Amino acid sequence: MSPFTGSAARTPEWRHLDLTVDDGVATVTLARPEKLNALTFGAYADLRDLLAELSRERSVRALVLGGEGRGFCSGGDVDEIIGATLAMDTARLLDFNRMTGQVVRALRECPFPVVAAVHGVAAGAGAVLALAADFRVADPSARFAFLFTKVGLSGGDMGAAYLLPRVVGLGHATRLLMLGEPVRAPEAERIGLISELTDEGRAAESAAALARRLAQGPALAYAQTKALLTAELDMPLAAAVEMDAATQALLMNGEDYAEFHAAFTAKRAPKWRGR
Amino acid sequence: MSPFTGSAARTPEWRHLDLTVDDGVATVTLARPEKLNALTFGAYADLRDLLAELSRERSVRALVLGGEGRGFCSGGDVDEIIGATLAMDTARLLDFNRMTGQVVRALRECPFPVVAAVHGVAAGAGAVLALAADFRVADPSARFAFLFTKVGLSGGDMGAAYLLPRVVGLGHATRLLMLGEPVRAPEAERIGLISELTDEGRAAESAAALARRLAQGPALAYAQTKALLTAELDMPLAAAVEMDAATQALLMNGEDYAEFHAAFTAKRAPKWRGR
Amino acid sequence: MSPFTGSAARTPEWRHLDLTVDDGVATVTLARPEKLNALTFGAYADLRDLLAELSRERSVRALVLGGEGRGFCSGGDVDEIIGATLAMDTARLLDFNRMTGQVVRALRECPFPVVAAVHGVAAGAGAVLALAADFRVADPSARFAFLFTKVGLSGGDMGAAYLLPRVVGLGHATRLLMLGEPVRAPEAERIGLISELTDEGRAAESAAALARRLAQGPALAYAQTKALLTAELDMPLAAAVEMDAATQALLMNGEDYAEFHAAFTAKRAPKWRGR
Repeated sequence: MSPFTGSAARTPEWRHLDLTVDDGVATVTLARPEKLNALTFGAYADLRDLLAELSRERSVRALVLGGEGRGFCSGGDVDEIIGATLAMDTARLLDFNRMTGQVVRALRECPFPVVAAVHGVAAGAGAVLALAADFRVADPSARFAFLFTKVGLSGGDMGAAYLLPRVVGLGHATRLLMLGEPVRAPEAERIGLISELTDEGRAAESAAALARRLAQGPALAYAQTKALLTAELDMPLAAAVEMDAATQALLMNGEDYAEFHAAFTAKRAPKWRGR
Repeated sequence: MSPFTGSAARTPEWRHLDLTVDDGVATVTLARPEKLNALTFGAYADLRDLLAELSRERSVRALVLGGEGRGFCSGGDVDEIIGATLAMDTARLLDFNRMTGQVVRALRECPFPVVAAVHGVAAGAGAVLALAADFRVADPSARFAFLFTKVGLSGGDMGAAYLLPRVVGLGHATRLLMLGEPVRAPEAERIGLISELTDEGRAAESAAALARRLAQGPALAYAQTKALLTAELDMPLAAAVEMDAATQALLMNGEDYAEFHAAFTAKRAPKWRGR
Repeated sequence: MSPFTGSAARTPEWRHLDLTVDDGVATVTLARPEKLNALTFGAYADLRDLLAELSRERSVRALVLGGEGRGFCSGGDVDEIIGATLAMDTARLLDFNRMTGQVVRALRECPFPVVAAVHGVAAGAGAVLALAADFRVADPSARFAFLFTKVGLSGGDMGAAYLLPRVVGLGHATRLLMLGEPVRAPEAERIGLISELTDEGRAAESAAALARRLAQGPALAYAQTKALLTAELDMPLAAAVEMDAATQALLMNGEDYAEFHAAFTAKRAPKWRGR
């Protein structure tokens, strides 16, 4: 629990996704398997709001994002989203697209690592959600498709034109975003889009194990590592080095650093507190 | 044809390169095969001016850049360019180097995708022209060499020190630009420098097919994808996400997005208009 | 010798590392093999000061950084550094972390290429020193480990959260910095962390050969290539292209460019002067 709790209560129930929190690991599951977890307006809004809530609690130290059924997420629902946006005025269209972008920013800026567990299809907005995670744990059935141009839209959706070149390089990113073709697991691994390739059917399990490890480890160190990786993409070298120095000096005053030294001296394993 | 046509007429004839425009695809061929398409002052100036002209016409939706004969382009001509620059004063040297840089900026900033068809040598400025394209379609004979230091110049020529690390990473880029050694097709593919590796002798044909596909598709969506990829290399995450939102809202008002939905609903292929 | 020599004399003896300078190549050896070349406060300070001194001399045209004994460098000494920092106040902690960051900045900003010769372990700060070099020449025993989180600190140490994503992409960098697991030579080569993989036991020799080649070549061209690669990571495209134009115009007035042309015309090898 954060020391700085305000008046706002935790939302008791999320209607558009499943949430469990267990031992510091939040597991968020897109649970509309009959539609390959296609995203609805409600699902985007829930992701935006849930990440904001979890970001103000210290109890969550890692998050797993996965999908129920045959795949991870097929992206925005053709009927609910594409059909509905055709009837929207300009202000509403901007509101919608800002909301989807806020989900990506929340995934990059939340103070805990996010592990996407990917099996089957991760298409459109689903591919960008996975891309915005810190880790993509995927099994051989994983298939990423940034298929925005196939519906007449820009491949730069929800920050994809920012993130993808920084993950796989500008050449691959151009090809993937421009053409929208599926990238299967072997290619995704080869170009650096997958963090950990698991055996068939084991993505959820491996992602959960990684998240548990992160939650039980030096969580403040992990959170700061994530924050620096995110921030320093946008900073010059001199400022990045200064930011690292200040962060490291801060953590050298922390409990986990002292605990490491005590444990090392006593030849025992450290008991991380995440502080 | 752009709705905003000014007084300037199309240049009727380009003396230093070959140009055809067919069904929205401009094909630009470096056509000095007896010199491995070595670039002259006139060729740089023609590329600069041609790209500016094509950028103000809506009729061009994709561009192929290739070379006639045994290779793509051997770079600046040793006799005409190196010899002549040795006699230039400082202002003229700066003008020359700005012109070559303008060609690269035009390739990155023109409102249509550029496909480089690479066979044989792509050396010096030729390697940078290919690097500045959105797609590098290459056959197994392709050989990239950023050989600037081999003539006593900086490897950072025409934006190469900006572009190459963003395509292949800083480690490979340092090696390639500092040492100037040739990179053959297998390595180029492994490090992400090639977009599509074709069978021997098929680079031009495959590049033309890709350009046709781009020209016949949702061309405005492709143009915006390119614009965002180019711009967001230089933007922080928050601004990039906002730019994506505005762009996507704009395209959701476009004809192609509505056409996709109509076609999807009617279970037919969309008829893209590029708007 | 630089034309701009001030009052400060060369430091006659470096107590915390070995230095030789031979034919324009400085060879810096971490020489505490009984501790796997673990870094002490003195070693960091010597690296910082030595790089500053070498940067103001024209006599050094390339630098090799290596380690004596079984490995390259095991990082900050657990006893001397971690133990001591636990007793430091905030200002002193910041001074220490700024000093380590200054070493990385000096490696990136010094006016000559740096070649890290890596065998065995390159861990913690040792991994970042190698990362900050222009070339990583490594043998199959090389093992990189950014193990900062394993001691309760941020993976973004000494600019690692800035540099590593720009070398291997954000996905791999997140995994390496967050988890701190060792990366062995085959993976390091696959993801672009190694510049040249040598036969077993040959990293020092190959690094020395590369440095000699750089020192005997067009050294000003190499220095400017390095400077542009470093600066243009932090610059937008238009500014980078302009910087390239000015740099190239400058070098076209230099001796080595004229020498290349004279040698080419006379069908002989150029005699580089590094000017």
